[in-house]
Amino acid sequence: MEIKQYIQANEARFLDELFSLIRIPSISALPAHKEDMLACAERWRQLLLEAGADEAMVMPSEGHPLVYAEKRVSPDAPTVLVYAHYDVMPAEPLELWKTPPFEPEVRDGHIWARGADDDKGQSMIQVKAFEYLVREGLLHHNVKFIFEGEEEIGSPSLNAFLKAHKELLKADVILVSDTSMLGADLPSLTTGLRGLAYWEIEVTGPNRDLHSGHFGGAVANPINVLCDLLSKVIDADGRITVPHFYDDVEEVPAAERAMIAQIPFDEKKYMEAIGVKALKGEKGYSTLERNSCRPSFDICGIWGGYTGEGSKTVLPSKAYAKVSSRLVPHQQHEKISQLFVDYLTQQAPDYVQVKVTPMHGGEGYVCPIHHPAYQAAEKGFEKAFGKKPLAVRRGGSIPIISDFEQILGIKTILMGFGLESDAIHSPNENFSLDIFRKGIEAVVEFHLQYK
Amino acid sequence: MEIKQYIQANEARFLDELFSLIRIPSISALPAHKEDMLACAERWRQLLLEAGADEAMVMPSEGHPLVYAEKRVSPDAPTVLVYAHYDVMPAEPLELWKTPPFEPEVRDGHIWARGADDDKGQSMIQVKAFEYLVREGLLHHNVKFIFEGEEEIGSPSLNAFLKAHKELLKADVILVSDTSMLGADLPSLTTGLRGLAYWEIEVTGPNRDLHSGHFGGAVANPINVLCDLLSKVIDADGRITVPHFYDDVEEVPAAERAMIAQIPFDEKKYMEAIGVKALKGEKGYSTLERNSCRPSFDICGIWGGYTGEGSKTVLPSKAYAKVSSRLVPHQQHEKISQLFVDYLTQQAPDYVQVKVTPMHGGEGYVCPIHHPAYQAAEKGFEKAFGKKPLAVRRGGSIPIISDFEQILGIKTILMGFGLESDAIHSPNENFSLDIFRKGIEAVVEFHLQYK
Repeated sequence: MEIKQYIQANEARFLDELFSLIRIPSISALPAHKEDMLACAERWRQLLLEAGADEAMVMPSEGHPLVYAEKRVSPDAPTVLVYAHYDVMPAEPLELWKTPPFEPEVRDGHIWARGADDDKGQSMIQVKAFEYLVREGLLHHNVKFIFEGEEEIGSPSLNAFLKAHKELLKADVILVSDTSMLGADLPSLTTGLRGLAYWEIEVTGPNRDLHSGHFGGAVANPINVLCDLLSKVIDADGRITVPHFYDDVEEVPAAERAMIAQIPFDEKKYMEAIGVKALKGEKGYSTLERNSCRPSFDICGIWGGYTGEGSKTVLPSKAYAKVSSRLVPHQQHEKISQLFVDYLTQQAPDYVQVKVTPMHGGEGYVCPIHHPAYQAAEKGFEKAFGKKPLAVRRGGSIPIISDFEQILGIKTILMGFGLESDAIHSPNENFSLDIFRKGIEAVVEFHLQYK
Repeated sequence: MEIKQYIQANEARFLDELFSLIRIPSISALPAHKEDMLACAERWRQLLLEAGADEAMVMPSEGHPLVYAEKRVSPDAPTVLVYAHYDVMPAEPLELWKTPPFEPEVRDGHIWARGADDDKGQSMIQVKAFEYLVREGLLHHNVKFIFEGEEEIGSPSLNAFLKAHKELLKADVILVSDTSMLGADLPSLTTGLRGLAYWEIEVTGPNRDLHSGHFGGAVANPINVLCDLLSKVIDADGRITVPHFYDDVEEVPAAERAMIAQIPFDEKKYMEAIGVKALKGEKGYSTLERNSCRPSFDICGIWGGYTGEGSKTVLPSKAYAKVSSRLVPHQQHEKISQLFVDYLTQQAPDYVQVKVTPMHGGEGYVCPIHHPAYQAAEKGFEKAFGKKPLAVRRGGSIPIISDFEQILGIKTILMGFGLESDAIHSPNENFSLDIFRKGIEAVVEFHLQYK
């Protein structure tokens, strides 16, 4: 049976199964939902078995359990490891939902519910493509599934789990459906992600808040000093001034820059959407390059002194900032982290004490477009959407993807089917039925093409 | 009778009267004490009459009432207007007081209570010196008293009161005992105060908080921009870069710089006391000049983005700061306020919106040391303390003193007897009995000398 026919014949069941998962409010952030997490994991285990897995099990971790399943075709064939997550974000504010978040319904060709896209809907694409291949006898390689329950809270237990189960998770490539496309008729594959380094800065001036009348002008104000220090981190050309910061940054190859230039992008609309009259970034790079394959430095938070109503004069004792840098592939976050600590500490004038604490970080990720799995994914999109997907670098960080590479040594293909309008993490999350169907088609084609 | 004898003979009564005032918790900031305010004003009215005033009255204002009293000696003689305040600061934290704040007691030669110095004790010095002069027939000029009840909350009703009662308050000089000396054996007179301008700055970047991964590097971060803008306000020499900022700043005359250089000052101890390893300020000026007769620019508060626990990445929509500038005499706060608004608005890059709101301000104040009342005050200190007081400029602002000059056209002599160790506004406020006695002597001598 052709895949299109198969979907048509089985769609009611697919939705029933998806809805049975959605109805379990598997909110990883809320301790009250601990039982729901287990129930959702159990439900997935059952569905994976029904879809054709040889075995499926719920495995404990330091936090919420994971679901593992596998279908072994041949020890000589390659193995695809499908990663997904079964947890969802809290649904608040509830009053903004048109229909209750955990009572899914189909309306206007979309599924409306928390998790409709992220990630229950997208996971179901993977499972139903797998089911079709198994039932039709078309699966010619091994498939493993690992579904975690803590993605929305930063995957705190995943690293330890990966390290403990390297053998079990052994695969040739990881396949993930948890990202977005540029548009419904603009399929794309994410080939790069930025890394991250994050620091907290504490500047201490006098040992207590001082009267700005009695001391102002004679004693350094730690907020002024903090502003001076942070102001120096980016120069007039938008470049980060930390010595050796760019040492490991690979210049974006001309071919890739040409591809980025092909992405339909209306700078005027972009500015209108975020309400700014001008953009700012590193000299010599386009906006899409700046926000995806060039490093950035942002002050995420700053505080100090009097921040209440009205006007209180004070020369405060302390000033604080939280700052982060998005890194590009090949920059090592720990190295960058130390470079920044050294730089800021050296820049600190002797009239203040500056403490810089690295908070967390993650490596960037890049998937070469000549990877056989990437090419199979490309063909999948082409089959389902009628056009070749664009290779897109994303400016955000998905730490688990670089963890997969670091710990398991496996590259990941980010074959995501989300859309901006799916409103993930927000009220009225939804997922287009049309995209759901095309997604299944695309993943089927991936498996058929991947060798 | 000599003044020393008079004090000795009457001290028990002086303290009884002072304690009767202290026992009334006249906390202007707390609405629950509205009746206490009235009771305290009434008590002063009575004490001023008993001390020798021809008439005394409690006068209404938009806020707490004021006490007015006068003794007319001759229409041809000059008039001294004594300003004081009968309100006190809240006494919290109460648990840090050794004895209850509104139950005054004498211990170790000090009066311990809220208001012991600020300003009930210091006001009592004025009233008892006046009493002595009246009883001994030594008063040769007119004396008026105006005691307000809102000094500790910024004197919100005083301006309107001054404007409404210009004739009643007509005088040749204003005498105030509400400041401090350099030390118990280092009498000083405050000859200058700094003015103040205060602004709130709001920098708006994108119309909502953005994902720093998706937008970081391509969109200006308003916190980074705020830091850049504020960092430029002071140059490498510690000078304020706002154009025309220094136009009206008078260079401190060489004679006055010489006098400032005489003030005993241990820079090392100063640094130790506030816990800094180095000082910072305008090039070419000493610390005592920088914090008293040169302008300053301080960021009093800053906030924006994520300021909670841990590390959250965000490219925030807004960033805020509260900033202030201490001004020196002759700088007009409204002019400076506008200069800064213009400067910052012009500096604002087109990728953000910058809003600068002037909050409040006040002029600086300077009392020429050749003023006859200043010279009388000098003699008063010399008589009581055995040495000529140093002329000291203070870096703080007392807006009412410049208001007196602006509205009433009268210079003020700041003949204050406080000490740093009096802990005004803090738990265990106290006032030395020895200083209390010397204060009365000094004020008596002032009146005898002032012609």
